[in-house]
Amino acid sequence: MPTPLSPTDRTTLNRKKNRALTDRSALYAVLDEGLICHLGVVRDGVPLVIPTGYGRDGNTLYLHGSTGARSMRDSDGVEVCVTVTLLDGVVYARSVNNHSMNYRSAVILGKAAAVTDPDRKMHGLRVLTDHLAPGSWEHARDVNAKEFASVSVLELDLTEASVKMRGEGPDDPEDEVAADLSWAGVLPVRTVFGEPEPSKDLVRAWEVPAHVRDRELKGTLPA
Amino acid sequence: MPTPLSPTDRTTLNRKKNRALTDRSALYAVLDEGLICHLGVVRDGVPLVIPTGYGRDGNTLYLHGSTGARSMRDSDGVEVCVTVTLLDGVVYARSVNNHSMNYRSAVILGKAAAVTDPDRKMHGLRVLTDHLAPGSWEHARDVNAKEFASVSVLELDLTEASVKMRGEGPDDPEDEVAADLSWAGVLPVRTVFGEPEPSKDLVRAWEVPAHVRDRELKGTLPA
Repeated sequence: MPTPLSPTDRTTLNRKKNRALTDRSALYAVLDEGLICHLGVVRDGVPLVIPTGYGRDGNTLYLHGSTGARSMRDSDGVEVCVTVTLLDGVVYARSVNNHSMNYRSAVILGKAAAVTDPDRKMHGLRVLTDHLAPGSWEHARDVNAKEFASVSVLELDLTEASVKMRGEGPDDPEDEVAADLSWAGVLPVRTVFGEPEPSKDLVRAWEVPAHVRDRELKGTLPA
Repeated sequence: MPTPLSPTDRTTLNRKKNRALTDRSALYAVLDEGLICHLGVVRDGVPLVIPTGYGRDGNTLYLHGSTGARSMRDSDGVEVCVTVTLLDGVVYARSVNNHSMNYRSAVILGKAAAVTDPDRKMHGLRVLTDHLAPGSWEHARDVNAKEFASVSVLELDLTEASVKMRGEGPDDPEDEVAADLSWAGVLPVRTVFGEPEPSKDLVRAWEVPAHVRDRELKGTLPA
């Protein structure tokens, strides 16, 4: 049995409830497939939304950035919203009004907190690296003391979250389907990796390492 | 000469100014290539970030949704933040700490306003359709009166905006480049359209229309 999400009033969807997924595995699937999130904070009373990297370990989401980045300083101990969206297709319907998008999205609300314990902070950095560039933690040089001090890691509990998806063809009324006056269907949208581009200043004739060459997107559509 | 962006204190970047683009054509290029935006609003004092469609005409951004959607009702006349992010690659550096992402992003701040004038609202719907599904305005059934009443269109002026990008290889210190202990380079990330999937309930044996079959992503990287 999947663990249910525990939505509060804030994360209970008001509309199109049929599109809401309520198990935690769907939340994790979206977060594990996404590459970036959009972090929302309130600054001077207005919303600010910035793209940033993240990583997930169990029920914890990690975010990172330079300690000099205002968005990170502003996020410690305050309410944030983290949204990850995977766009899966453009839905062409018989009528302009019924056009839509297929997507999966996760919205997480909570108080972000700076991770200060050194062991847990290093663990957070590893989770972030494993998400951004799986295999790099083993391949590339470790984080040194100066770098460790200059980076901040935030954690956010995944308890208050909602997941939505649309993953089907156009939803036209029967009479318009029968009239057959327009083409209808879905144009899939995919995120793919291209051919690795080695840095021009590599000294040796490196082969592209397997963790880069064979990288695939992690996620799978929930059943 | 490109028209410069006119950033306010809120949209002037505090860090990595070298990554900020200051001409309006770069803003338009990001907006025209993106398919979805992330809309940030403040609700009950906390940020809420939701993915949604948009369209641009000149210096105006249009957003739409059902009049029943709380995020749309909440956005009329209030400060919003709209962010569009195009992820272009994962940057593998010699050290874990220097890993990064190549991206282009636009952040727009301003007061969204509901478009109530019928002609301008219909124009906004056309702009939104032309962005989501170019060619569908000509191909699919027009918006009828009932649909027109049930949809809301918001407009947002693009004056207060910032554009950021990173589009290069890893930025490692010289001694680490010379040591050549790790592979370094960029794994490109691309958004692509798949093969169109005709709706199973089409009556005729339709050929996929050219506006769907030949659709390409609009954008080009700014020089």
